[in-house]
Amino acid sequence: MDSSREKVKHASKTSKQMLIGLHIGNGYGSQQGAWRMPGVDPKSYTSYDARVKQAQAAERGKFHFIFLPDGPGAALTDIENEAPSFNLDVMLTLAAVARETKRIGLVATGSTTFNEPFNLARQFKALDVMSHGRAGWNAVTSSGDAVAANYGRSIPSSEERYGRAHEVIQLIQALWGSWGKDAWVHDQESGQFAKRDQILPINVEGKHVGSRGPLYIPPSEQGQPLIFHAGGSPNAHELAGRFANAVIGAAFTIEDARAQRNAFREAAKRYGRDPDEIKYIPGLMTTIAKDRRTALDRRIKLTERLFPQRVVYLQQMLGIRLDLNSLNEPLSKEQLDAARPSPFDPRSAHALKIAKEGWSLRDIIAHGVIDYHPVIVGPGIEAADHMQAWFEAGAADGFWISADVDEDGIDAFVDEVVPILQERCLFHQDYQGKTLREHLGAPDQYGTDPRVSTQGKGTMEE
Amino acid sequence: MDSSREKVKHASKTSKQMLIGLHIGNGYGSQQGAWRMPGVDPKSYTSYDARVKQAQAAERGKFHFIFLPDGPGAALTDIENEAPSFNLDVMLTLAAVARETKRIGLVATGSTTFNEPFNLARQFKALDVMSHGRAGWNAVTSSGDAVAANYGRSIPSSEERYGRAHEVIQLIQALWGSWGKDAWVHDQESGQFAKRDQILPINVEGKHVGSRGPLYIPPSEQGQPLIFHAGGSPNAHELAGRFANAVIGAAFTIEDARAQRNAFREAAKRYGRDPDEIKYIPGLMTTIAKDRRTALDRRIKLTERLFPQRVVYLQQMLGIRLDLNSLNEPLSKEQLDAARPSPFDPRSAHALKIAKEGWSLRDIIAHGVIDYHPVIVGPGIEAADHMQAWFEAGAADGFWISADVDEDGIDAFVDEVVPILQERCLFHQDYQGKTLREHLGAPDQYGTDPRVSTQGKGTMEE
Ligand SMILES: Cc1cc2nc3c(=O)[nH]c(=O)nc-3n(C[C@H](O)[C@H](O)[C@H](O)COP(=O)(O)O)c2cc1C
Ligand SMILES: Cc1cc2nc3c(=O)[nH]c(=O)nc-3n(C[C@H](O)[C@H](O)[C@H](O)COP(=O)(O)O)c2cc1C
Repeated sequence: MDSSREKVKHASKTSKQMLIGLHIGNGYGSQQGAWRMPGVDPKSYTSYDARVKQAQAAERGKFHFIFLPDGPGAALTDIENEAPSFNLDVMLTLAAVARETKRIGLVATGSTTFNEPFNLARQFKALDVMSHGRAGWNAVTSSGDAVAANYGRSIPSSEERYGRAHEVIQLIQALWGSWGKDAWVHDQESGQFAKRDQILPINVEGKHVGSRGPLYIPPSEQGQPLIFHAGGSPNAHELAGRFANAVIGAAFTIEDARAQRNAFREAAKRYGRDPDEIKYIPGLMTTIAKDRRTALDRRIKLTERLFPQRVVYLQQMLGIRLDLNSLNEPLSKEQLDAARPSPFDPRSAHALKIAKEGWSLRDIIAHGVIDYHPVIVGPGIEAADHMQAWFEAGAADGFWISADVDEDGIDAFVDEVVPILQERCLFHQDYQGKTLREHLGAPDQYGTDPRVSTQGKGTMEE
Repeated sequence: MDSSREKVKHASKTSKQMLIGLHIGNGYGSQQGAWRMPGVDPKSYTSYDARVKQAQAAERGKFHFIFLPDGPGAALTDIENEAPSFNLDVMLTLAAVARETKRIGLVATGSTTFNEPFNLARQFKALDVMSHGRAGWNAVTSSGDAVAANYGRSIPSSEERYGRAHEVIQLIQALWGSWGKDAWVHDQESGQFAKRDQILPINVEGKHVGSRGPLYIPPSEQGQPLIFHAGGSPNAHELAGRFANAVIGAAFTIEDARAQRNAFREAAKRYGRDPDEIKYIPGLMTTIAKDRRTALDRRIKLTERLFPQRVVYLQQMLGIRLDLNSLNEPLSKEQLDAARPSPFDPRSAHALKIAKEGWSLRDIIAHGVIDYHPVIVGPGIEAADHMQAWFEAGAADGFWISADVDEDGIDAFVDEVVPILQERCLFHQDYQGKTLREHLGAPDQYGTDPRVSTQGKGTMEE
């Protein structure tokens, strides 16, 4: 492992620094057993105090933003044992956090598929105003019939969903921009409230959605919210390439992340944009402790209930039989020789690498080899090394962090990982600006694209 | 005018007390000139601090609830001079207020016409949980093509709108009730998070809307939010009679208010309900000052800009010609004799009564004879007398108050009107309960109506 000192030298050659966001979900943490851990308030799921405290912890760590995923489809099949994974309502959470933090960006998912665009537009713009320019909208297309069923529908095709998404984003940006930068005068002396000629209807009419406008909300300190996107298909690349300031990503390897990042950058170029305007931000899950053993034991305590099903899954990843009764044993030489990482699961090679290091079957799983993102189980420096390696390989412009248990996992990241990244000049010492656009280096945005919105009639391309 | 002492005797015979709500709109107040007044922060329109302060003032006055209307249709035609009338976003405002108040109920309008029901359901339920059981949903049908145009549509017929509204409310109540009262266990010892058999899909499918469910949100301290309604047609009576705990009303005379109240009560009976379960709450606008003259001068300062157009309107109400150049003069005997109150405007008779008292044309208008609700312009006792008279005449179960200028008008009501009502035993001394249901005397509500939602397939009647 390289020493921290060498890294400082290396990193300081470049002035670019990474972005960091914090995932806030069900209030307990990203590991399913989090709600049962000692010291965790078992009512955190409904506690806005808990979410605010988590956001404040991230702000203490100078995180650029918090990110709240959303997608109300779960059938709650494991509700007997585990908490649902999302916020009760992402916008209400962000409203509370907006009032009780000062600098951190506030990003939530809002479906372009199952929302009235006008409602989405005003809620995110109101949040942007409320937070003094810290809002970002993760504009996704919903996927899965489970979500659609809650809206009494079945899920539209990818073409249909992304066609609508292109329109919804243009429409919402037009509404956001329907007050010019200096439209709101509020001059008590002269009695002028606003400049009528800088507040224009948008009159946009597309194939899927339309709106007259104007929205009744003046610009925020950053003009209007940023656009985030999350999705993996070529359609997602196009949508993000056209509109997104940042992409919430998921990738298990540097190669995969770099390929994804490049796909989004190439798409941005096709829309005449500077590829640096689109930040690719894959996820990272962390269990930070003073050493690997302590961290592994923490993971075991958290998720042991799920180990039987994970052993079954690991069998498929490695193409060998595993024995549930031998959780304390490393894999045998025969097993290791026979193992063939599944080409269908990008986590398989990493799982085999861990297995070959000689860890017991229980510890292999405790390394988080079966999870939604790469997982660091160990001291802070291991997370810092991972992030530096990905960042310097052109695989990421930053990371969104999912702590295993929010109660102490966020603080662990802030106290054990952030200082190392700062020492290596990979992460800012403090917020430089006040708005999310400043945090991301995105220019302020005022007014509407004249191609989309006109006083007469606007046009949108799907 | 009766003495306060006599009223105490009278009122104390009945144990029933009135409800009071506070209207919170654009942050300035209900009079258009409010934003220009000295002492008013001209940025209150975007200030969540201002809204929170207003709600806290109402809570100091033991108001049962705040009410935030919403209906995004304004074309902003007078934006050069006047502020839009609504909150930037009612749910974000209520989220902030929920965190920064303790007892007051939180009611906002949510359109049944232009919302995805699942989204409305989760947002109001999340608010209910966040506020520990203080949420109410004013379930209206949207009216006007101006609103519809923001959603890229034209407005549906009343039948269509109310047909959908019946379904949307049933669907949302089913989602709200999809966790049983004791479903959420969160027992860290046993590892049981929730009782699977008390969390059921709703599988409701109507003509207009449908949803599988369940919602992923456990009950609040009051089970689920209350239903409010606002509307004046027979269709509105039916909808409210079937579902509403309270009606946000508008009436200019005791007779009209009593007729409306009775219409809602009769409708409730048709649905097998106790008519006392539906509270009829008409509006009242106030300019409270130490005496009538001071209050009139305050109104003149606020709205003088609009007097020319109001004189024109008053001509129509009274059926006589008025002279804009004689604002300082009372109407002449000839004018008063010729005046015929318009049968099409219920405010006309009151306007003529004021005119006959000999006030100048300016002062007649300053009495608020042309406004959305009855207006008190004078000392607190006049408001208390109005409220007592309506309450005791069976014309109202309470009132929603619109202060002229929020900055000091809410405090004026709290300090000058509330103590008189309390002294007369017409208004509670303090909150008796913690939830909005307790404030309104409505029973807690858990679970779903078995006629609507079943595990198999639910049915809804339009
Ligand atoms: C990292 C990541 C995060 C996502 N977050 C959400 C989310 O919060 N809510 C949601 O509904 N979908 C989310 N999605 C799903 C995508 O929006 C999209 O529906 C899905 O990826 C299928 O679209 P695709 O074919 O373009 O990938 C996420 C996807 C990825 C890759
Ligand atoms: C006192 C009162 C308050 C209302 N508040 C709202 C509101 O906040 N938002 C809204 O869209 N409509 C509001 N409305 C309009 C009604 O929802 C409804 O659209 C309108 O009254 C037409 O329906 P109707 O024919 O049943 O009266 C209100 C109506 C009344 C009488």
